Formats: sequence, C-alpha cells, structure tokens
Amino acid sequence: MSKKITSRLENFSKWYNDIILQADLAENSGVRGCMVIKPYGFAVWEEMKNILDKMFKETGHVNAYFPLFIPKSFFSKEASHVDGFAKECAVVTHYRLKNDNDGKIIVDSDAKLEEELIVRPTSETIIWDTYRKWIKSYRDLPLLINQWANVVRWEMRTRLFLRTSEFLWQEGHTAHENKQEAIEEAEKILGIYKKFIEENLAIPVLDGLKTNREKFAGAVDTYCVEALMQDGKALQAGTSHFLGQNFAKAFDVKFANRNGQLDYVWASSWGVSTRLIGALVMTHSDDKGLVLPPKLAPHQVVLIPIYHNKDEYDNVITVLKKIAQALRGLNIRVKEDFRDTHKPGWKFSEYEMKGVPLRIAMGPRDLANNTVELVRRDTLEKTEVSLDTLSDVVPGLLNTIQDALFLKAKLFKEQNTFKVNDWDEFKEVINRGGFVSAHWDGTSETEDEIKKLTKATIRCIPINSKEEPGACVLTKKPSVQRVIFAKSY
Amino acid sequence: MSKKITSRLENFSKWYNDIILQADLAENSGVRGCMVIKPYGFAVWEEMKNILDKMFKETGHVNAYFPLFIPKSFFSKEASHVDGFAKECAVVTHYRLKNDNDGKIIVDSDAKLEEELIVRPTSETIIWDTYRKWIKSYRDLPLLINQWANVVRWEMRTRLFLRTSEFLWQEGHTAHENKQEAIEEAEKILGIYKKFIEENLAIPVLDGLKTNREKFAGAVDTYCVEALMQDGKALQAGTSHFLGQNFAKAFDVKFANRNGQLDYVWASSWGVSTRLIGALVMTHSDDKGLVLPPKLAPHQVVLIPIYHNKDEYDNVITVLKKIAQALRGLNIRVKEDFRDTHKPGWKFSEYEMKGVPLRIAMGPRDLANNTVELVRRDTLEKTEVSLDTLSDVVPGLLNTIQDALFLKAKLFKEQNTFKVNDWDEFKEVINRGGFVSAHWDGTSETEDEIKKLTKATIRCIPINSKEEPGACVLTKKPSVQRVIFAKSY
Repeated sequence: MSKKITSRLENFSKWYNDIILQADLAENSGVRGCMVIKPYGFAVWEEMKNILDKMFKETGHVNAYFPLFIPKSFFSKEASHVDGFAKECAVVTHYRLKNDNDGKIIVDSDAKLEEELIVRPTSETIIWDTYRKWIKSYRDLPLLINQWANVVRWEMRTRLFLRTSEFLWQEGHTAHENKQEAIEEAEKILGIYKKFIEENLAIPVLDGLKTNREKFAGAVDTYCVEALMQDGKALQAGTSHFLGQNFAKAFDVKFANRNGQLDYVWASSWGVSTRLIGALVMTHSDDKGLVLPPKLAPHQVVLIPIYHNKDEYDNVITVLKKIAQALRGLNIRVKEDFRDTHKPGWKFSEYEMKGVPLRIAMGPRDLANNTVELVRRDTLEKTEVSLDTLSDVVPGLLNTIQDALFLKAKLFKEQNTFKVNDWDEFKEVINRGGFVSAHWDGTSETEDEIKKLTKATIRCIPINSKEEPGACVLTKKPSVQRVIFAKSY
Repeated sequence: MSKKITSRLENFSKWYNDIILQADLAENSGVRGCMVIKPYGFAVWEEMKNILDKMFKETGHVNAYFPLFIPKSFFSKEASHVDGFAKECAVVTHYRLKNDNDGKIIVDSDAKLEEELIVRPTSETIIWDTYRKWIKSYRDLPLLINQWANVVRWEMRTRLFLRTSEFLWQEGHTAHENKQEAIEEAEKILGIYKKFIEENLAIPVLDGLKTNREKFAGAVDTYCVEALMQDGKALQAGTSHFLGQNFAKAFDVKFANRNGQLDYVWASSWGVSTRLIGALVMTHSDDKGLVLPPKLAPHQVVLIPIYHNKDEYDNVITVLKKIAQALRGLNIRVKEDFRDTHKPGWKFSEYEMKGVPLRIAMGPRDLANNTVELVRRDTLEKTEVSLDTLSDVVPGLLNTIQDALFLKAKLFKEQNTFKVNDWDEFKEVINRGGFVSAHWDGTSETEDEIKKLTKATIRCIPINSKEEPGACVLTKKPSVQRVIFAKSY
C-alpha cells in the first residue's frame, strides 16, 4: 500500500505535515512541543551541518560548548534581551526526585534550587559571562566561536521543524576590538548563510536588515536572509546580529585596546536552525512528496531491481551492484533497495515520497539491452541510459537537478515579488501572497498598523537596494527606499 | 610568564585540574556543576566524534535526535531504571517567567506544568516510547540508531570532564528480533569502543562484564571497557548494555516475529562521553602539561620561528610557510605560531602545556644549515632534521609517537596489574593502586563488604579469561574465575 498525502492546493499546511511524516523526516514525540528527528531527516541535517561547519572553519571560526542551563539572573542583565527571551522558557526549579509513601515518584521539595535555571533559549548571556574571563587585551581578540547545540523556547502552537519547543541550531558568538570589525563579521556571516542556502538548499534568499521592531532582542542591527515558500509566505532562514557593546556592558567585558585604554568589547551573534529543513520542504516538494536537492540528499540515487523470478533477480542484482560500486567511486551517495518483501511499484512511490533525486531501475529487458531506466524526481522525466555512459550521465544530471531546483525557485520568487504603490492594491496583493516591495515611512507605528490591518510584517530592508524616494503605502509620508513586506511563518 | 602546574606526585588531583585549565581544555562555568568546553578541548572531542561516528556508520548505524525532556512518569515504567536514574536530575516545573511588581524576574506560578519534565540523564525511556510506533514487524528490525547529545545528571561534587552535571556523549539504542542478535550487538559495540580507544586515545583497556551490583539500571548485562590512570585508579571508559526485553516490556513494544507471533523486542544501548578526555589527560600527560596522541591532537605539529630582527624573521617565516604547506599536503594538522608578541621560549612551554606532539623551530643558524629543530612532546627528545627529509620524517614520527604512547600506557597497566590471593595482601595492594586480579565468591554481599573495607569495586569480570577455580579473597568461598578490583573514578 503506497502512502498518500494531501495536495498543496487542498491544504498547504496539511500537505507540509504529511510530507514530514510520510518521508520519515520527523514526528511529534511524547513530550509536548518536542519533535523526534528521524534518521532520514537527521541525515539531511548532518549534510547541512557538515557543509556549514566547513564554511565557518574556513573563515577562521572554531567550535566550543557552553552550558545548557543559564541562571535566571543572567537574563535581567541586558534590558531588551530579557523581554525577548526570558518569557516563554523551560525553568528548572529542582534537582531531585524521590518516592513518596505510595512508591510514586514525586519532586523532592527539599531539593529546590536557590536560583532557578533556564534551559538556554539562546546563549548570549552565558557566553558573555564567560568571555569576561577570556578577554583582557586586544591580543585576545577577535574571538570567533560557534557552537552546535539544542535550545528551548516554549511554544504553545508548534509545527514540525518550523516551530518546536526544542530545536537544534548553531549559534556563533564573536568578540571584536572595534565596531567596524564586528559589523563586518555580521555581514560576512550573512554572506555565508546566503551562499550556503542558495548553493546547497537551492533556495534563493533576500538579504537585508530587520526593522527595529523585528530585530533580535539585544541587537543593534539584525541582518537576515528571507525565503519565499510555495504558498506565498516568507520564512526567515537565518539571522546575523551586530550586538554593539550591549552584552559587553551587561556582563562587564572590557579589554585594553591598542592605545592602552579600557574599552567595552564589540560583538556579533548569528544562527541557523533545523527550521531550514522546513524551508527545504516548502520550497521544492510537490504533491508526490519530498523533493531534495542532490547536495543535501542522504541518498542521491536509488537502485531498484525489477524481476519475476529468482534467476532474473540474481542477474539484475549483479549488474546493479556494479553500478552502485561505480557510482560510489564517484562519491555519489547510493541506496540499494534489493528487498524482495516490497514490489517495485511500492518502492518507486516510496523514494518519490522521500525525494531521492534519481531513481535507476533495471529489469530483464533492460539487462538484455544493456540499459537502465533513469527517472528524475524533480521532473519525473524518464530516460533510457546505456550502461556504458551511466557513470558519465549521473554526476552531470545531479548537477542539472541542483541547478534546476534553484532556477525554478528563483523564478517563483521573481514571479511572486510585486512592486506596489497603492494601499488597496497592497492589501489585495498581500492577501494573495508573495513578497511585496513597497514604501514605508520608517516608523514602528506604521509597521504595527500595517501588521494589524493585513497580518503582514516587514521581512527586511534590502541591502544594496537603490535609494528611491517615494510615499509610504499606508501614511503617504515620505520614504527613502522600498522595503519587503510579506505574511510569514 | 609561562604557566605552572602542580606535579603529579605532589597532588594528582590538582595536577589534573591544572592541566585542564592551563591547556585550555575546559573550565567551570557560572552554572554550578556545568563546564565550558573551550575551543581547544572541543577540537579534541570533535576528532573523537568524527572517528567514532565513522565507525558506527560503517557498521550500519544511523544518527537521529530525540527530545531533551522526558515526562516524569516515563521513569516509573522500568523498575530498576527509575532507581538508577530518576533521582539526581534536573526537573523542569514551569514554562514561563514574568516581571514582578518591582520589575524583578520571577517564575510565573500560573505556568506550572501538569507533569514535570526531566532533563534526560539517558534516553532509553523516551526512545522506547518512540520505538513502539516504529516497530510492528520483524521487517522493521533491527533498528540501529545512535544520537550525539547532551545529558544531565545532577552532581554535588564535580570534576571537569570526569563528573559534571551536564556532559556530552553518544548513546546508541538498538532494537532486535531475538536475544542472540541483541547480545551480539552489545558485544560488537564493546569491540568498537576497545579498538577506538586503543588505536586513537592510545589507552589500553580491559574489556569485561560488570557485576549485578555495578551494571546499568535496566540492563540484563553491562559490558565495559576499563582503563588504568597514572595514579593507579581505574576509569570506566565506555559501557554497552544488553537490555533484554526490559524496556520493550516497560513501553509495550511488541512485533510480529517470523512465525507471525507477537513478541517483545530485544534491545541494547551503549555510550561513551566527554569523560574520555579526562582519561586521555590522566593516562599520558606529565608535569609539563598535556600529552596528546597524534591521532586526536588538534595541532599535530607547531611551527615556531626564532629571530633577532625583522630580516631574520622574514627569512625564517618564508621557509616555515613552505614547510606548513608541505605538511598540510600530507594531511597533517599544522599550527603556525608566527606572533611577534610572544618569545620563542614562551611558545615552547605553551605548546608543551597544550600537548602538541611535534614542535618544529627554526632560527637563522638552522636556515643557514638547511635544518630545523624537531622536538617530540612525549619524550622531549630533540633532533636536527634536514629540510630535504622533513616531509618523510614527520609522518613516521607521528606514528611512532602514537605507538610509543600506547606501549608506555600498556606497560604501565601491566606493571600495575597484580594477582592477589590473600586478604592482607589485597588490602595493601589495593591501597597502593592498580588493577587487582583476585577471586570472588560471586555474591553482592561480598562485593559490598570489600567496598566497605577497601573502597575498591569490581571493575569487571574479564571476557575470555580462563576459568580458574579458587577461593574468594575475602570469604574463601569457592570461585570460578578471577575478577578485576580497583579503586576508581
């Protein structure tokens, strides 16, 4: 019995959830708001992690590990940070359980912590409390440190990968001797995120600055990359913050600068999370299931035998095994599904559901013709390929699929980005979905009002966009450049 | 000013702590019992992780991720597990903070969880609660899943890497259709641990079974690898458990077997942690600091210039850069320390402290002679090597150091393993330190009594050791084989 999923048109959100479950990426756990990332989904995350970790290291960053728990008082030290992060969080109050008189397990009230511990929602506070001990002089700078970790932000309404109480991410925390260097770091990382996402996830992103209303709690400036999903909603794919001296001041981190004077340290922080898997699903997948870009696919090619009896099976398998070996020699990740407990047709839909970029099937007739049947997951195009040329064809085709996915998503983004000058048009277009490029008077009040009226937020103030004087789409007050509005995840 | 550490003889425990701090491996954090793993220490862990992860994958295991939190009630489901693990743990009782009337941050008493969540001390319970949904038939088996994660066990007396409230580890959790396969899995993993630790950490280990008293809470059998530290104490380096059907029964995980009958699933679980870094330090290091085996050293070779003026500096650096390039071409991890803010002598002690296996220094005289000065960290032996042969010498020397460290540790282990037959001798030898091979009558009562009298525990019942009838060292009752006693970490 092959698996069925809801179509995108019928119910986009149910379609999304169906894919996550049916492609074996993740599922909800017995713990409210926390997901289990299944082996297939985790393999996608591991590919992402390997690539990104390499990019960080090539640009001089190193990994470290800071505690899971943060003392409650740390959050009070940076005024805007506390409002943003110390609200919905997991609070550890006790450190022991015991058996009560009936043998039931209860919390031991004698083991109450003097100060409650918060499970980290993000680690600026504990890290800057540590940096105070590490930074004495400009010679100790820059510090370019990243950690791969789990974080917890209590969520009432959760969605697999997009919004869960616990998620996995990387968080970089850097320290610099001057403002310019910290800004350059935040911008460099934004560039890494854009390159990483576009080249590997095949998702085109807009890069820009968040408005004051939307920026990170504790940041001077938040840079972001924003992607457009197939339902016309935006998804924030990564953020990089210039923190100024805010955390250095909150945690009293001073250093002797090159002039021998004491100064507060300048900072950046930045992160991407398992949410990227949600972006991947919502950008490329279709009504037959997941579509994975080859660079991140745990299996890039699946091999499936077709046969009617033991002899045919043996003959086909012998050749498929050789193909597997040849492709692996080219560093291609190959899945052999030679199980005789499942029919070829079942396997075809299974690997379509799982988004394996290329399927190679071979039956007795193919064997006689010295060919295989090759099917692209993205277009479902079938071709017959001679065994003699297969090792030349496959690597090129994987690149073609990677490029095609990006171009398709780029076209979609372009076709769904609209310049709007009029308020009625704005409301109508925002309602249909997509990025809306419009003038804004620069005030948080107008931003709030637009959100109230349309549910749309400013996703970003694009970087490097030309100054273009105009009138705010809502208030008609003067504006210096267009910003990007959208409804979002 | 170069760093100083306590000598091993003076105070082993202070020596250990000094090395961890001075070699920049880790430090205590602002959160009681939780450590910060610094970049240098984390790089050692990353090397370990990469090697071990590859070994797991080559033997058919895949990674996944399960929730950090476990509902309190899950712990009650496996009777012996609850006693072992649900006692000293971090308990999450609330999910929100708020500002009180004075603007202080307090726990919001309205946001109390209906059921408390425990921060995982180990994940058998949450994973077997999940496996119930994944396993229906023998066709779904085996499941060979591992996760790299942080876990928390509340500790009152902590020591960096050896015993901290939070630590990093991998935990494998496998499910099988019969007993034999689950036992074989537990044993296979023990073999992987032994090979991994001996070949990479250069630490010889004893492999064996734990006694009932020492085994994992919830296991039928616990296999372990035990190492001997320089102070004569044993350290448990890894464990692999045959869990029988205990967790399958506790979480009602049944499958249709090959005869079409419903049966409970068989299980194993296994783990090693950042504690291995503690073992590494206590096995190889000396009074000058850390000694790292080349396979795990973040920097295998450090290059240091010696010079009196800018011209000399430039000339020496030019050659050192070529050396770096040549060595990197051989996949050797090279650190260039060309800073002119620190003197060569300071750098020499710094990298001795950090345990870099090979130091290459070059001054104007070396340059004239076309040589470098090569110093081994383990023996501190100095040799002059011609530039022409350096690329041949270095890789071989790194292998030599790796082997020498293992052999030295193996000799130490052998010289500190004692066969003892008499109780007075037992007490005396145990007190001096080392592994003591002695007869035991097989009862937990005797084991308890010996621990009470000597602080020694049975580290393991060696695998594949010959049956050798004898009399228990304490009770004189009959015994079938010798077991290994030691004081331990």
